[in-house]
Amino acid sequence: MSFSPLLDELIKSLQCLPGVGPKSAQRMAFYLLDKNRSGASKLSHVLASAIDNIGHCQSCRTFTEDDICRLCLNPKRQQSGQLCVVESPADLLAIEQTAQFSGTYFVLMGHLSPLDGIGPNDIGLDILATRLAKGNISELILATNPTVEGEATAYYIAELAREQQINVSRIAHGVPVGGELELVDGTTLSHSFAGRISIK
Amino acid sequence: MSFSPLLDELIKSLQCLPGVGPKSAQRMAFYLLDKNRSGASKLSHVLASAIDNIGHCQSCRTFTEDDICRLCLNPKRQQSGQLCVVESPADLLAIEQTAQFSGTYFVLMGHLSPLDGIGPNDIGLDILATRLAKGNISELILATNPTVEGEATAYYIAELAREQQINVSRIAHGVPVGGELELVDGTTLSHSFAGRISIK
Repeated sequence: MSFSPLLDELIKSLQCLPGVGPKSAQRMAFYLLDKNRSGASKLSHVLASAIDNIGHCQSCRTFTEDDICRLCLNPKRQQSGQLCVVESPADLLAIEQTAQFSGTYFVLMGHLSPLDGIGPNDIGLDILATRLAKGNISELILATNPTVEGEATAYYIAELAREQQINVSRIAHGVPVGGELELVDGTTLSHSFAGRISIK
Repeated sequence: MSFSPLLDELIKSLQCLPGVGPKSAQRMAFYLLDKNRSGASKLSHVLASAIDNIGHCQSCRTFTEDDICRLCLNPKRQQSGQLCVVESPADLLAIEQTAQFSGTYFVLMGHLSPLDGIGPNDIGLDILATRLAKGNISELILATNPTVEGEATAYYIAELAREQQINVSRIAHGVPVGGELELVDGTTLSHSFAGRISIK
């Protein structure tokens, strides 16, 4: 038993969304058809437009419909001399929301993963090397994820920067603010001891 | 801080889906742009086509892109004389998957809810009354949800059917198969005692 061919196709198409299985897709399809046809119609248009127009910023590789994204075009950010390397646009947004960083970014759109065939050029390290060679970067901040692949990627990029005599730093690992010591895992606690800061 | 205008609009549009908030929408947008542009493009087309073409079956009110759905057109089902009333197309599918019922359906697309201003004609009871008056229905099976609104709707429809001297039945409430007695709520257990069947 199935619904009408078009409804079946809609339910199948909705499953291209991450975390959406057959039951959720069915619920979404019924909801859109029954309660929110205008929202569905708008989603359809915006989705088509986004797929056609959104590409990567030529400077930092984040998603944008322009050649160069708004952050890269900001002259104040360009002059700061700080460049922060992150794995994804979501990481970029998380850092922007802290309002602590006013330099430019470089978004890898992934991390080095030789077993999956993802090498330096797949995460844009050739573009990053060109940016570093331009000579207007004073500090490279590595904000890749604290996973095995993220650490390996950070190490690889640090080598690239050292070749150009650029200062490299890595964001601190340690006990999350508001967390409880007894609930923090051993590796994180080790990092927080190794990275302790003297109180002046 | 926000992304590019088009990306912001995509993230906002994705929130028209049920159960999708800002964070999930962001994850979906990045996933589609990064990993599944062909799926997203297909979803956009199918969604537009579904919104334009899918309406309600003129006979049973379920979703279909045709005037009359395939279930209603099936002559064997028409001849069975049984008509099952459900609240939603998802309920219809659940019953179809049991393969126990071979009659036709009537989908209310909701339930009576005077407080929300949903009266008999909003759930198509005028269409149902016309179908009942045609005289080819021998049994009306009420399979609305076992909620207060579902029960009230079932009671209302039962009255409609009695006016036409049509047999009316309600699906049985009781202990779910595979469930454990001690975990079943009191109301359900009362129903299962009241509806006990003698073993022949």
